[in-house]
Amino acid sequence: MQPPVRGRAMAAEIGEQPVVLDRVLTAGITTIAAVAAEVARRGPRFVLFTARGTSDNAALYGKYLVEVLLQLPVGLTSPSTTTVYRARPALSDCLVVAVSQSGGSPDLIESTRVARECGALTLAVTNAPDSALAAVAELQLDVLAGLELSVPATKTYTAELLTLYLFVDFWRGGQGQAARPVPALAAELLGRDDEVAALALRYRFPDRLVTTARGFAYPTAREAALKIMETSYIAAHAFSGADLLHGPLAMVDAKIPVIAVVPAGAGGTALLPVLDRLIAQSADLCVVGSDAAVERGTVGFVLPGGVPEEVSPMLEILPLQLLAYEIAIGRGLDPDVPRSLAKVTETH
Amino acid sequence: MQPPVRGRAMAAEIGEQPVVLDRVLTAGITTIAAVAAEVARRGPRFVLFTARGTSDNAALYGKYLVEVLLQLPVGLTSPSTTTVYRARPALSDCLVVAVSQSGGSPDLIESTRVARECGALTLAVTNAPDSALAAVAELQLDVLAGLELSVPATKTYTAELLTLYLFVDFWRGGQGQAARPVPALAAELLGRDDEVAALALRYRFPDRLVTTARGFAYPTAREAALKIMETSYIAAHAFSGADLLHGPLAMVDAKIPVIAVVPAGAGGTALLPVLDRLIAQSADLCVVGSDAAVERGTVGFVLPGGVPEEVSPMLEILPLQLLAYEIAIGRGLDPDVPRSLAKVTETH
Repeated sequence: MQPPVRGRAMAAEIGEQPVVLDRVLTAGITTIAAVAAEVARRGPRFVLFTARGTSDNAALYGKYLVEVLLQLPVGLTSPSTTTVYRARPALSDCLVVAVSQSGGSPDLIESTRVARECGALTLAVTNAPDSALAAVAELQLDVLAGLELSVPATKTYTAELLTLYLFVDFWRGGQGQAARPVPALAAELLGRDDEVAALALRYRFPDRLVTTARGFAYPTAREAALKIMETSYIAAHAFSGADLLHGPLAMVDAKIPVIAVVPAGAGGTALLPVLDRLIAQSADLCVVGSDAAVERGTVGFVLPGGVPEEVSPMLEILPLQLLAYEIAIGRGLDPDVPRSLAKVTETH
Repeated sequence: MQPPVRGRAMAAEIGEQPVVLDRVLTAGITTIAAVAAEVARRGPRFVLFTARGTSDNAALYGKYLVEVLLQLPVGLTSPSTTTVYRARPALSDCLVVAVSQSGGSPDLIESTRVARECGALTLAVTNAPDSALAAVAELQLDVLAGLELSVPATKTYTAELLTLYLFVDFWRGGQGQAARPVPALAAELLGRDDEVAALALRYRFPDRLVTTARGFAYPTAREAALKIMETSYIAAHAFSGADLLHGPLAMVDAKIPVIAVVPAGAGGTALLPVLDRLIAQSADLCVVGSDAAVERGTVGFVLPGGVPEEVSPMLEILPLQLLAYEIAIGRGLDPDVPRSLAKVTETH
């Protein structure tokens, strides 16, 4: 009898991502274009995202897309405002986007139902088109990632990012062209798993870790920290580069490894002064990013070019998912089944 | 010659808070009422807060106030959207509130200037009425905290909270009555410093710590974590109770102390199931909150009654400021001057 293989589901699901991303770009794109056209026709003036966990990091990416590409005011709203405090906000002219892998969290379902009652145009972005969340929203997008078995979400995350990118790009009149290279680039990145396994040796023993980024890459820093926390139980703490300077920098010394996500583009460039401060404090710095940024790090992983900064997050996260997986395996843990967690989290 | 006394400025500024809060309620209230009346007259339909560091936690509190008490859609916006990505969003019908102790951070000044150009009604909430930030905003509120010398902000934080509460309460037609007991309750809480010093012994050695809360108390959990990081270099990580269940709970075991903020009210009640999960995982749990909640903890600090949940944050944080101070002193550090930090942080 063979022993169960630790992390088999997570490894398989990480590996599926090029296929999933290609599916979104082919099978998914017609629906995305139609939903975007309907939203554009309705012309919301304000956008609210609502989500939890990994999907909350996808929602944060969506927030940057709406702010920068659509130039609309946007917020992340907590479901608790409606479920705990019973607020019934005035939401005409608002688009409320609920992002959820399972579509099953009671607080998201309830807050989306209330938002619709309060006059919002509601959109559910889920990997579960038959879910209660998709049913209560006026519009739905299926991220087409297929069944996800491992507790740490990987392919549903990148599928959510790509779906949100295409949705926003079609909404502003684009055709999603900039995302075309994503599946091939994803396959290329995932083929570099040996490089990631070598990096993972560095994180065999620390029990704290900091991740940082700015702008579009900041959701990547947060999602990387969440994956590492979930799978390896390291206290991994994400900070935007600017927030890091407003206090938490005091905590960083040579004993806390730092992982910075620094793609080519304005956000990456804005992080460079933060890297200099970290280097001055003797931080152990791993840079996942452009050639030029990786040169500043103690160690690093060079991201391929070929996509604009706003498309990069669905690629940047791939080596970091692999890293979370490798750290967990190295520590003798099973990343498929983190202690204390269930796949669908029921919060109210 | 006497040696310099570690933490003298921070201790003094923590102690000043009853006087500062009373000043806001007396000298400040007329201006707050006038600004709120003008905002109500203009009738914005969306609100955006923008801030960094400690003031970002005050802004998060403001977001809950607007969502729950005013029932308006609201977001926290990153200055980087305008300073790094040059977005020029459509902001008519929007109120943009910039919160900053110093009023001197270049990215906040620039993003507020751009917001005003883009049609927003702009309001600066600062402790520096002559600052560049106050000058670029159409409306200004001075939080009247007086000169703050220690790098970790304390009295400016609670003064920002009270100012934001009064602003929102006047905007909705109230008179700030519920906040009247705050200065006296603050003095009572700060008189219990011996209790806090006893609690601080527990945190002499850990290098990681988790704080958690829900709803109105969540900004308190974040601000407590930030103060502890800044002064004691502990990796203190704040999670909303719901987010904790979506992943990070895996990280919490008997070796990571947890501090939960659980005031009486709907938010505190919604956190109780999270406390039960933490207890089931043998977490070391310190509860700062109502009598009933403190009973569930390993240790705790009972908050006085007398104010509604939405007013409680400016009181809850007081024992946690004292705790951050006491932990730093216990570890032989000077909380007035954390390594690597300056009082005014210049981010772009």
